[in-house]
Amino acid sequence: MPAKGPSQSYADKSEPEKGPERLAALRKLMAENGLDGLLVPRTDEHQSEYLPAYAERVAWLTGFTGSNAFVLILPDEARVYTDGRYTLQVKAQTNASVYTPDDMTAKAPSAYLGEQDLAGRVIGYDPWLHTMRGFRAFEKAAGKAGAKLKATQSNLIDSIWTDQPGRPNAPIIPHPLELAGQPFEEKIAEIAKTIADKGADAGVLVQADGAAWTLNLRGDDVPQKPMFLAFTIITAEGEAQLFIDPGKLKADAEAQLTGVAVKDIDTFPAALKELGAAGKTVMVDPATVSVKIANTITDAGGSLVEATDPMEAPRARKNAVEQAGAKAAHVRDGAAVSRFLAWFDREAPKGELDEIKAADQLLAFRRETNQLQDIAFDTISGAGAHGAIVHYRVTHATNAPIETNSLYLVDSGGQYRDGTTDITRTLLVGEPSPEHTKAYTLVLKGHIALATARFPKGTTGAHLDALARQFLWAEGLDYAHGTGHGVGSYLGVHEGLARIAKQGNVPLEPGMLLSNEPGYYKEGAFGIRLENLIFVTEPEDIGGDLPMMGFETITRAPFERRLIGVTMMSDAELAWLNGFHAKVLTDIGPQLSGDDLAFLEAACAPIQRSG
Amino acid sequence: MPAKGPSQSYADKSEPEKGPERLAALRKLMAENGLDGLLVPRTDEHQSEYLPAYAERVAWLTGFTGSNAFVLILPDEARVYTDGRYTLQVKAQTNASVYTPDDMTAKAPSAYLGEQDLAGRVIGYDPWLHTMRGFRAFEKAAGKAGAKLKATQSNLIDSIWTDQPGRPNAPIIPHPLELAGQPFEEKIAEIAKTIADKGADAGVLVQADGAAWTLNLRGDDVPQKPMFLAFTIITAEGEAQLFIDPGKLKADAEAQLTGVAVKDIDTFPAALKELGAAGKTVMVDPATVSVKIANTITDAGGSLVEATDPMEAPRARKNAVEQAGAKAAHVRDGAAVSRFLAWFDREAPKGELDEIKAADQLLAFRRETNQLQDIAFDTISGAGAHGAIVHYRVTHATNAPIETNSLYLVDSGGQYRDGTTDITRTLLVGEPSPEHTKAYTLVLKGHIALATARFPKGTTGAHLDALARQFLWAEGLDYAHGTGHGVGSYLGVHEGLARIAKQGNVPLEPGMLLSNEPGYYKEGAFGIRLENLIFVTEPEDIGGDLPMMGFETITRAPFERRLIGVTMMSDAELAWLNGFHAKVLTDIGPQLSGDDLAFLEAACAPIQRSG
Repeated sequence: MPAKGPSQSYADKSEPEKGPERLAALRKLMAENGLDGLLVPRTDEHQSEYLPAYAERVAWLTGFTGSNAFVLILPDEARVYTDGRYTLQVKAQTNASVYTPDDMTAKAPSAYLGEQDLAGRVIGYDPWLHTMRGFRAFEKAAGKAGAKLKATQSNLIDSIWTDQPGRPNAPIIPHPLELAGQPFEEKIAEIAKTIADKGADAGVLVQADGAAWTLNLRGDDVPQKPMFLAFTIITAEGEAQLFIDPGKLKADAEAQLTGVAVKDIDTFPAALKELGAAGKTVMVDPATVSVKIANTITDAGGSLVEATDPMEAPRARKNAVEQAGAKAAHVRDGAAVSRFLAWFDREAPKGELDEIKAADQLLAFRRETNQLQDIAFDTISGAGAHGAIVHYRVTHATNAPIETNSLYLVDSGGQYRDGTTDITRTLLVGEPSPEHTKAYTLVLKGHIALATARFPKGTTGAHLDALARQFLWAEGLDYAHGTGHGVGSYLGVHEGLARIAKQGNVPLEPGMLLSNEPGYYKEGAFGIRLENLIFVTEPEDIGGDLPMMGFETITRAPFERRLIGVTMMSDAELAWLNGFHAKVLTDIGPQLSGDDLAFLEAACAPIQRSG
Repeated sequence: MPAKGPSQSYADKSEPEKGPERLAALRKLMAENGLDGLLVPRTDEHQSEYLPAYAERVAWLTGFTGSNAFVLILPDEARVYTDGRYTLQVKAQTNASVYTPDDMTAKAPSAYLGEQDLAGRVIGYDPWLHTMRGFRAFEKAAGKAGAKLKATQSNLIDSIWTDQPGRPNAPIIPHPLELAGQPFEEKIAEIAKTIADKGADAGVLVQADGAAWTLNLRGDDVPQKPMFLAFTIITAEGEAQLFIDPGKLKADAEAQLTGVAVKDIDTFPAALKELGAAGKTVMVDPATVSVKIANTITDAGGSLVEATDPMEAPRARKNAVEQAGAKAAHVRDGAAVSRFLAWFDREAPKGELDEIKAADQLLAFRRETNQLQDIAFDTISGAGAHGAIVHYRVTHATNAPIETNSLYLVDSGGQYRDGTTDITRTLLVGEPSPEHTKAYTLVLKGHIALATARFPKGTTGAHLDALARQFLWAEGLDYAHGTGHGVGSYLGVHEGLARIAKQGNVPLEPGMLLSNEPGYYKEGAFGIRLENLIFVTEPEDIGGDLPMMGFETITRAPFERRLIGVTMMSDAELAWLNGFHAKVLTDIGPQLSGDDLAFLEAACAPIQRSG
């Protein structure tokens, strides 16, 4: 049983009404520090996407609670940048009298900065929160605008956020070899080899889930993510130092960590200085390592080699044990989701469900597996128009009834010790409109095109992304998010390295676990997203000239057959769908009974073209 | 009528047997210059792909005559790098006792260099032939290998190539407004604006076809390419200097060039020095501008701004007049090609054709348009196994008979004053094997998937490339070249900016002219390539949420219906094919008569599923 019960809060964490006073207080402090502007990225010192509470500075300042944001405070305005997933949410959660929402994918905050006339102005920033790569864009932009960037000694928001939570201090526990599949010593040796190959003496790893993966440990510093805040230094000879808050490491975890020096996280800057002073060459990933870390090393006399974080590639390629764990987790999770679908099918037509009731029931079924450690993220439970808000989070204030003749989108996942799950289904209550059916089928066709794709070595996610979009594009439709992200092994539900997206320039490799989640969103009306997780498979001889890789779908829960326009589907697409449903019935059927099983059998029955 | 008759030489220009002695002579000269190695790129001072004769140094040295090569001469070996199109050809055209062929796409020459132990060694290079970007990779690699790079005062090969041709000096003629569609003054103003926007005082343009496009001139310095060797300097205020060999500019062309300072190309280095000495900031494209040019500017005190050549984007987006010209050229050229297809259909079964006879006949039909200025490139006329050599060039020595029950691949194009064409068809003699039909149909399905694709603003060629490969991939097949390249407007048949390829990271824009040419090659057996040219169309409301771009196919010649596996084609694919053939018949039919017309009518008749 998990130490703490998994849960989801439906409290409205957004306080847009406090935006004006908080921004005013911040501007006052900025002025005292000689600053005309301030860069406020939504991240922490580890470039986390899911943040510990103390680092939710953007949410506190502006009200916007989405997972991707950047606040650009300039003398005469403050812009809250986010992306297509949050276009609607950012408008709802920020006070328009002081904040201007913007889309960072249309124009980056740095690009906007570069267009301003800020001659002689000084823009502040917290050097712990800006990556080397991200900061370069701002340096260039500031130069163009005539402004100067100035590092603040501490984070200015922390000074005015009176009830800011403290640093999390959850216990760190072992992630045993029977789940990790590889001793941490081997992982460190592999990372050390990469560091040596790049000509560096040591590497600095800053990602919280990177330390957890590398050292076969798990923590609980961040809600729904079994990771812990840490920095790691690994030398080319394979010596490792782990920097964490003292006392977090429980005895069993510490006993396991033979050969790793565990140090107080407050001594991390001193360790960087020491590396620099010794004239070491340090490997840093400009995409995650902060300018503070980089400058501390170089100011002390060290030099840098820039390269992708050396744990990214081995972490992304799940080993056989991790793969087996993920599959087991998906069969277990698929049963909970299928029970939910059966329950929804019975209950929704009665007209008494709402978004919170549905999310609670899904959580209840997951809990009944007795193996749920936590949910993997706040369940996106979107009825009708809320489904069009890509990362919608239901609160007591927004909780909407699930109405007849409407769609309901549910995107959810579980954290199990053997794997992390992430699944989206779009459900129907009552009868579909022709528009519902058409859009659902176009999205499903894209999902199947990706699921069935074959591709040679060297193919990236950017090369495959259009396969999932082509049918929507042909009808003038699209979705404003990537098609697939990496998924961790009882770690982050969003994980590097490869992704299936226009910008996904990393070659796909066997063992990578990704999502396959095309969608379609009609603002104010409905949202559709169909998500399974997929493993990249080994190159296989399929009878041609070249061995081809492909995907293995490991999610196990049926699609909504009543939303499928059979005449729009090709024979091959129907064959894939029927084959998938047959697997769902085989793997999930034995875990269900009674009405649930009857539902699943009907949901998984082969779809015939004449039906 | 053209000034010189278009022609193709079938002489074997390759002299691999002379490779050893020429390499020995070069090594002797290298030793005299204190060099242990030498970098020999296959290009000229303008980074041309199609070279003036004097710049064919790689072909002279090694025997390899393909369009993409790099020779890496090291103390103990000499490697001839090329790409997947030339894998077979490079083996056939180089002497294995001194040259080792390699694939630069598998490992770049610089990467290989970096892996060698060359401590204390000196590697020479001609600084006029290396781009800033390309050279950086070699600098880094040399550092890794412990070697030093040293610029040579002149090109070493020129010193030992006793009968090296001189610089070409063909007359430069006007390309009139009714064909160019835009006054050159407007083009210069647009380029000047880009230069100013980048914060530069001036820009240096080095591409030969760039000068031709910008100034509405055409030349004849390079076989089959109506361009002339030139450098251009354009200031942010719109002042232009054109550097060419004196006397090339004929009176009518000179009269047209009001406001452009025409200077002797030998004074170009002095002009660069002058820019530098005046402390100017000069915009250079690191992908085309040589290190010699860059260093001349900075050594004199100037500074550089790196950006894509400012004429690339406007040149790539064909204006309405250029688009109309290209379409007219394709209707004219399509009639010649269709007459060839009809002739081939009658003659090939008699068993007396060979590759040269076929290429000559195709040229004859193109000549009969009375508007052919030149062919756009040496016709690739590949019978049977020669079709699998992607850039096969037939010579008297290789000329093969076109046999019954085999495939014949013909890739050809014409230079007309209103447009450049490029078309590939794969023809059948006798009866197809099931493998022929399967491969042809898979390639055709990919061709159609690209031709019919719809896509939103921002989509690049890399995003679409897999659409053309997906059906081959599904069968374990692929092709080792890009799917599409840019095509010029009575200019280079290979032109920047966008391409449809894994590396094609430039967003597609309306008016861009590209090829659509998936293929399949079975070494030693047959080759298939199906190529039409396509325009990127304006975003169009097709009834969805977003306006979508697409492609308009402008090539006009039928496919080989006897190679199409109708059961493998979807209804939508057949509908496109029948629609395309209907257009061919409408546009080409009126230009044909008798047996040719009867052939075309049969070739373009709708293909029925039950047929």
